Parts: sequence; structure tokens; C-alpha cells
Amino acid sequence: MNIEMIEAAAARLKGHARRTPMLTSPFLDKIARRRILIKPECLQHTGSFKYRGARSAISALEGPGGVVAYSSGNHAQGVALAAKELGRPAVIVMPADAPQVKIENTRALGAEVVLYDRETEDREKIGKALSQERDLTLVRPFDEPQVIAGQGTVGLEIAEQAAELGVTAGDVLVCCGGGGLTSGIALALEARAPGLRPRPVEPEEFDDVTRSLRSGKIERNTRLSGSLCDAIITPQPGVLTFPILKRLCGPGIVVPEEDCLRAMALAADRLKLVTEPGGAIALAAALFHGDHIKGDAAVVMISGGNVDMPVLVRALSDYGDSA
Amino acid sequence: MNIEMIEAAAARLKGHARRTPMLTSPFLDKIARRRILIKPECLQHTGSFKYRGARSAISALEGPGGVVAYSSGNHAQGVALAAKELGRPAVIVMPADAPQVKIENTRALGAEVVLYDRETEDREKIGKALSQERDLTLVRPFDEPQVIAGQGTVGLEIAEQAAELGVTAGDVLVCCGGGGLTSGIALALEARAPGLRPRPVEPEEFDDVTRSLRSGKIERNTRLSGSLCDAIITPQPGVLTFPILKRLCGPGIVVPEEDCLRAMALAADRLKLVTEPGGAIALAAALFHGDHIKGDAAVVMISGGNVDMPVLVRALSDYGDSA
Repeated sequence: MNIEMIEAAAARLKGHARRTPMLTSPFLDKIARRRILIKPECLQHTGSFKYRGARSAISALEGPGGVVAYSSGNHAQGVALAAKELGRPAVIVMPADAPQVKIENTRALGAEVVLYDRETEDREKIGKALSQERDLTLVRPFDEPQVIAGQGTVGLEIAEQAAELGVTAGDVLVCCGGGGLTSGIALALEARAPGLRPRPVEPEEFDDVTRSLRSGKIERNTRLSGSLCDAIITPQPGVLTFPILKRLCGPGIVVPEEDCLRAMALAADRLKLVTEPGGAIALAAALFHGDHIKGDAAVVMISGGNVDMPVLVRALSDYGDSA
Repeated sequence: MNIEMIEAAAARLKGHARRTPMLTSPFLDKIARRRILIKPECLQHTGSFKYRGARSAISALEGPGGVVAYSSGNHAQGVALAAKELGRPAVIVMPADAPQVKIENTRALGAEVVLYDRETEDREKIGKALSQERDLTLVRPFDEPQVIAGQGTVGLEIAEQAAELGVTAGDVLVCCGGGGLTSGIALALEARAPGLRPRPVEPEEFDDVTRSLRSGKIERNTRLSGSLCDAIITPQPGVLTFPILKRLCGPGIVVPEEDCLRAMALAADRLKLVTEPGGAIALAAALFHGDHIKGDAAVVMISGGNVDMPVLVRALSDYGDSA
């Protein structure tokens, strides 16, 4: 993994991935007690940064043939759209109890959806079996070099846009699941904005990356469900991503879930953005846990906006106008 | 009014106004039964396009001194922020019964707020009196050349961004109150994208521009309150704006208010944007009134996102996930 791979991914994504803007709000700066620059990947195609990694990986494939991925959410939609655009069939392995609307969205993006029973079946096994039987390339959600390279293109944009706004030093807060986004951004910043330091942000009780960074070795989550931030919950940091995180990131920041709902209400009110709980966790860290952050300015990743309406309504009803 | 004034405004706004992206969604294309390109000015500073006109007008002032404006909403915040940035005092005349949060926001942006009684006092008179007594320049909300020029900078961006996406012909749907935004966009498109035709969009019962375009002379609204789309309700088209609208616009499109709520839910779900009812009315026209639109592609302005939380919650609760 190196900056050249990220630059090459950026060239493949050009004209396809959106260059999302960098947003600011004097009201949020006041709450955060420092200047914050917000990179809203909820405005990316399919509503999350995952499209970048998916398009990067699928556009780097040699030879013909389709792809397979397992995901209940953002990676599924990213892979489905990128495969469709690139003229390759896509099979997405999704849990049968996933929200119907997500299954329908993935189908509407042209993918074949294979359902499995979350209680009794193993999605990785199903993915591998499909890959072999039907000669499909497996696109892993994060532990995949060209996926990391694609997510790293966000880091190139952050480096440029932050410099345009006069910010060349400070923490870059990134919501972190398996570490694909965080490690991609970290590699890009190392090369293009060495004064910006990535900081993984995780929900309480699902802080595998924070604990792994502290102990220096891969630690696992004890639970894998029951979080509002479901989109960023993974068992443990990746084999490819963790060494990058360990080398380049500052300490992790752990945030209570409820703060994500408060941050969602403020993102709606002050930035006019719809965010998902996991997607707003870095904003929650910036707004409500500033004591753990250094410097006069910070960059905040909003990673996605694919939220179930009842959760959004709850955030706005409980915390809107007064968050 | 001419394209040179808009280009000059764009030069003054460079590095200050955000260049908002042009968004697309295959899901919305399907509902609209044509390709739609969405220009989200809810992502502009202060949550609406009004910042452009305000910054254009205030940055064009000669000599020192402050400004005064009357507005209960988006223009107030645009003028307050632009004046603060440019180091000029701003006085905003607001109705005493405006939502407290809007009054506080305007004050937080550094403006002095003068409250008046909507039932017994005339805001224009108060504005003029303040202007004379305190030597403040009045920044009118739409019938003001440099305000129109500032709003026209959206049109320059639409011309460029639509061409990048391969769209050089079709209707450009613009929510229309006094006509400042629509006339500015119309002048920009006339010069830079003559195949794109502006179409004003208004709520039912508040269709002064549509009727004026039909009759060829300025027609008034019979009511001025009681609309969800309060931000785009004005008594009649402007003296400066109407001749431009008449010369350059296609027929107006009139949309029931309830469709704005449906469009708001879809903007949240598919674009991850928070919109206000009047700000979503052009999207409502594109999605639900396509029979009135010509061509394979249309451009849709989303003008603002400053919505009261209960209205947003109502839109999402009533129409989310199933709009």
C-alpha cells in the first residue's frame, strides 16, 4: 500500500466519484470550541464513501467477469453501483432480516441479492462458495488493497481542501470500522498533509481499534450487534489496515451512541445534511469530546447518510433545535 | 442588468460563497421519468442561496457604513453573515413573532435585530426610517441589481456543471418568490447556456409569478400567509425582476404544498439533504409534475434548508421510505 496506489485510484475515479465539498459552520465551531472542517461523504454516490473503494477495486480488475460482496448496507450499494457502471454483474450476499428497503435499493442498482440466515449461516463462506462456483471476484469491504486505495482518495481531497481553508495541522477525526477509510486517509495524509493526524473514532463498547492501538496488537469486539452505529461495527481491525493505523494514527476516541444522535440533529440543523449514526460519530467527537483533540482546527469525516427514517426522526425529535 | 454584472459578482464571491455540487440519483431519475440534475443551495453558507445576493450587494457598496434589511428568514441570515465578514454593521428588521431560533441565529451572526409587530407595523417603513436615521444602506431582498447579480452566480455554476454532465438543453426549475434568484439565473443562462430554459415554480394559491407570466403584467397574491413555503411567498414579482422573467422564462409551474413535503422526504432519503418546503418545491415539480416539463433532462434548484424541525419531522414521518 502506498500513495501511488491512491493516486492511481483517484485517476480511475475521476469523473465518477463526486468530489464532495468541505463544509464549515460558525455555530458548530462555537460548540466545538475550535474551527472544524467537515467532509460530507454522505453526499457521495449511494450515500457513503464506500462507492469510492468499490469503484476503485472493480475498475482495477483484469479480465472479464462479475463480482461478489457481502454487506448489509453501504458496501453493498457501493459495489452494486460501481459494478453496474462498469458493466460487470454483481452478487451481494445480504442477511434475510436486513431492512427490505436496503435489499430493494441494492436490487434497484442492478445487483443480484442472495439472502442468508444470520443465525445459522456464515456470509464469508457463502461469498467464497459463490466466488468459486460462478467465477466471481470477491470484493472485501476493507481488507483489500484497492478498496483502501479508493477510500484514500478522500484523504487526497481533505489535504487539498483543508490547505485551501488554511488548515495544515490538526487532527482528522474518522469514524472507524474495519479501518479501510481510516487507513486510506492516513496514507494519503502522510504523503500530502503530514501535519494532519488521523484519529479513529468508535462507539462505546465497540472500540476494538482504540484498544488495539493502545495494546499494539489486534483486539476483538466482544459484541457485534446492538449498536445504532451498525454500519461501522466489525469484529476487529483488518490484517492489512491495522499496521497502517498503528504506524500513522493518533489514539482512538470513544463516543457514547447517544452523542451520535445529538450530532445528527446538529448536522441537519447547521449543515443541512442527513447522516447515519455511525457516519456522525466523528462529528460527535469533535462537538462533545473536544478535550481529547489537539489544535485550533480539526477535520471531521461524515462517512454516510444511509439511516433508517425512524432513527433520523428520533434524533431530530429528541435533539433538534436544542442539541 | 447584464451578464457582466453577474461575472463581476462571481469574482467578488470567489473564495467566499461555496460552489455547491451538482447532485444526481438514479432513484430520483426513475420517479421523475427523466434525468434530473440537482443544485443544492441548502449547502450554501447560512443554508440558502440568499448569502450570494447579500454578499454581492454588500461587497459592491462604496464608502463606509452599515446595512439594513427586513426579512424573517433566509435573507436576514445572508445579510448578517455577509456584513459581518465585510466588517459592516447590520440591522435586521424581523417580526416579533418570528421563531426565536431564527432571531437568535441572526444575532449570533453579529446583526442587531429590531423587532416589529407584524399586525400593526410596516417593515418597509421601519427599514427606510432606520436607513435615514442611522445612515444605513437598505439591502432589498430581490428588487436590487447587485442582489440579482449575486443570485445569478448560481446560474453560471449551473451552466458549467450541467455541461460537464452532458446536459445543454432542458428546463431549469427554480422556486420563485420575488424573482431575484430566477431572474439572476435566467440572465446567466441566456449568456452561458441558451439551451437551458428557466421555469419558475410556485405553491398553489401563491402563484403570482405564474399568473403574471400568463397575463403579461404584474399580478398580486391575494394572501400572504398560511403557506408552508413561507420563504418564497412575496406579494408580487419585482419591478426589476418581472421584465427579465417575462423575456426569458418558460411558463410557471404550480405545485400543491403537500408535494413539497413528499419531495423533502425524498431529498433526505436519496440525496441526504435537509430542505425547507419552499426550497424543495422545484424538486416536487420535477418528481410529481413532469407532464409540465419538456426534454430528457431537467435541472432542479434546491434553494434552501432552513426548516423548522417539526416540519421536517412531519415530512419524514409522513413520507419517508415510501414517498
